Amino acid sequence: MTKFLYQCSTCGKSYRRDEVRYLCPACAKQYRPGIPLVGVLSARFDYGAIRKKFKKANPDWALFSAVEKKYYLAYPVGGTPFHPVAALGRELRCENLWVKNDGLNPSGSLKDRASFLVVAEAVRLGEKCVVTASTGNAASALAAVCAAAGRQAIILVPETAPKAKLAQMLLYGARVIPIKGTYDDAFRLSLEYTARRGGLNRNTAYHPLTIEGKKSVGLEILQQNKFKTPDVILVPTGDGVILSGVFKAFQDAKAAGLINKLPRLVCVQAETSAAIHHYITSGIYRNADRPHTIADSISVSIPSNAHMARAAVRESGGFSVTVTDEEILDGQRLLAAKAGVFAEPAASATVAALKKLRNSRLLERREQIVLLITGHGLKDVDAALKGVPLPVSVEPTMEGIDSLAARP
Amino acid sequence: MTKFLYQCSTCGKSYRRDEVRYLCPACAKQYRPGIPLVGVLSARFDYGAIRKKFKKANPDWALFSAVEKKYYLAYPVGGTPFHPVAALGRELRCENLWVKNDGLNPSGSLKDRASFLVVAEAVRLGEKCVVTASTGNAASALAAVCAAAGRQAIILVPETAPKAKLAQMLLYGARVIPIKGTYDDAFRLSLEYTARRGGLNRNTAYHPLTIEGKKSVGLEILQQNKFKTPDVILVPTGDGVILSGVFKAFQDAKAAGLINKLPRLVCVQAETSAAIHHYITSGIYRNADRPHTIADSISVSIPSNAHMARAAVRESGGFSVTVTDEEILDGQRLLAAKAGVFAEPAASATVAALKKLRNSRLLERREQIVLLITGHGLKDVDAALKGVPLPVSVEPTMEGIDSLAARP
Repeated sequence: MTKFLYQCSTCGKSYRRDEVRYLCPACAKQYRPGIPLVGVLSARFDYGAIRKKFKKANPDWALFSAVEKKYYLAYPVGGTPFHPVAALGRELRCENLWVKNDGLNPSGSLKDRASFLVVAEAVRLGEKCVVTASTGNAASALAAVCAAAGRQAIILVPETAPKAKLAQMLLYGARVIPIKGTYDDAFRLSLEYTARRGGLNRNTAYHPLTIEGKKSVGLEILQQNKFKTPDVILVPTGDGVILSGVFKAFQDAKAAGLINKLPRLVCVQAETSAAIHHYITSGIYRNADRPHTIADSISVSIPSNAHMARAAVRESGGFSVTVTDEEILDGQRLLAAKAGVFAEPAASATVAALKKLRNSRLLERREQIVLLITGHGLKDVDAALKGVPLPVSVEPTMEGIDSLAARP
Repeated sequence: MTKFLYQCSTCGKSYRRDEVRYLCPACAKQYRPGIPLVGVLSARFDYGAIRKKFKKANPDWALFSAVEKKYYLAYPVGGTPFHPVAALGRELRCENLWVKNDGLNPSGSLKDRASFLVVAEAVRLGEKCVVTASTGNAASALAAVCAAAGRQAIILVPETAPKAKLAQMLLYGARVIPIKGTYDDAFRLSLEYTARRGGLNRNTAYHPLTIEGKKSVGLEILQQNKFKTPDVILVPTGDGVILSGVFKAFQDAKAAGLINKLPRLVCVQAETSAAIHHYITSGIYRNADRPHTIADSISVSIPSNAHMARAAVRESGGFSVTVTDEEILDGQRLLAAKAGVFAEPAASATVAALKKLRNSRLLERREQIVLLITGHGLKDVDAALKGVPLPVSVEPTMEGIDSLAARP
């Protein structure tokens, strides 16, 4: 850990670490359910101190952490594969295409990173109980990390969350409350819950360490890429917190003198859940009207971190794109069949976006492009099966096999 | 790679690398469908050469590989987490309990390791097509690695394979043939398939490099455990190939002078699928009669590598244990809730076994015990949900939440 202050992303005011817990108290007054969060805090480190201590030859990434290592759990989050996907690249006309596969985190999604850090914070604060609203992945992640840490996870999810994610949370021993409503309803209700009943609220962006936790994926990419900034990173975007976290990683690394260049970030949203996309492209914010996409992890009407996400994309020199469910399922098949990576629909949206962009001038053929794979395909098998029909069974003979080939 | 000969585990005869492909030609004559394989080959390296070159400070594990690194794919198999699980240990009265979580391989199971090596061999041999029979995991693994390698996977599975595994194979672009029969039928048919139509057969134990591929999990445990041999490793056992592979890792490491001690291996089988267990305990082999267990990955009537697996357990000083489906589901919940590890039923059988053994004298409280987690829980969500009912949905209000607590 390195000393840091929390800075409000809305008004710029700074706070000492334990002076605030969630939003900037001054700006939070402007926040009400039904709009994106106002006053989201960002950890500003003593970058000079990091610069002095950090060695590329033997990197101590704990220097970039906002929680002391002694509160960390012996639970293996992160350290996921980063590798080239040449055959997929040929298909998409990219000569230098890479995948960061965060579906291989313990609970199967990048959200493990935020949960890991927030639970470390809960240990530091002596909080026994951590509460979150989630479309599914953040909840599975929180439940997993809480199980390992011996803390109680309390989880509010829309009742439409995929069965696999619900199974995970329950098995990990979380208290799961499916609500007859949307993710946005769950978000609102979870704020009410911790305000009235206590515990630590892990809501994404609402707790500033969710951004810091997600930051670790960017730092890992940097190390795995030998301290060279990739040209472009495609990020599946719902709430906008992963986008903010990835940007923060490169901002922090730049502030600490590790790199000179920031990657261009591409915000990828589902067509019916594109509040941040519209905000980026038009400059005017409005909630997404009844999002309905197969990419449940990025299905959100009111993205909590819309403001910071938009700023990240703009400052990075990036842009935004939307994809349809059909394109997402096609992207999922392409990623699996050409790279051996089975990703959930939200993550597959990045492949769909790249396919859509391959003839545009927004990307150059030789640039190093990274697809951020945020969740495992096994999280939602029913979605995957929409794209590929199950074959019929045959008798266990060579004739049986041949009868299959003869079918239309 | 280091020079090696294939040695027949039945008659002891040695062969040069490209002199044979599958079983020992002499012993294969005794093999017929319906019994375990005879003449399974084992790679015997020039251990003196490894001893000279291998450095613990900078380990080059490729020295222990039977395929040249230049045929390896840029696809991240292995490197999975190995970590202590203290809270689970307290529950099971083990003071030094660890998990090796191979469910975090790309396709979600340890089988990725065997597929990785066999596909590297296919690349070396110029084979375009790789064929396997599988209960599901080996097939998903082969499909994933073949996708990444641009080879065609042809897969024979019992039609009862869990949907998630089928979805994976199909998405990865494999040719999937579900058969009206058991895994044993699929095994027999796949041998017929490659004999008649060509391609490389990846059947477990039938292709000797499946054992070598699985060996890598043992070598990784050794490195992650700082070159100290764990006292005990619990291995979920169906065909007996993982057991053989893990044993081979420590045998090879011992032969190369890296360690002096072998771990005791505990063979864990499901009660209705316990041919190897009965073989170990009685000395007499007989097929399991109609196996029917929720742990589909270890459901097998005729374990292909029964002979080698029995020898491994005996030589290691280990033993064998069976568990019921109820115990397996209980083990799955325990592992998830106390360690944050969501494993498929087969892998959870290790936890069930440990719980069963906790009052026995077969294990000592202070020994270092490793649970080998061979597959991800997301592989079979319906099985997991048998242990935990889905909660009912409530209105998105504090009253709604409280109404849940009030339910019986």
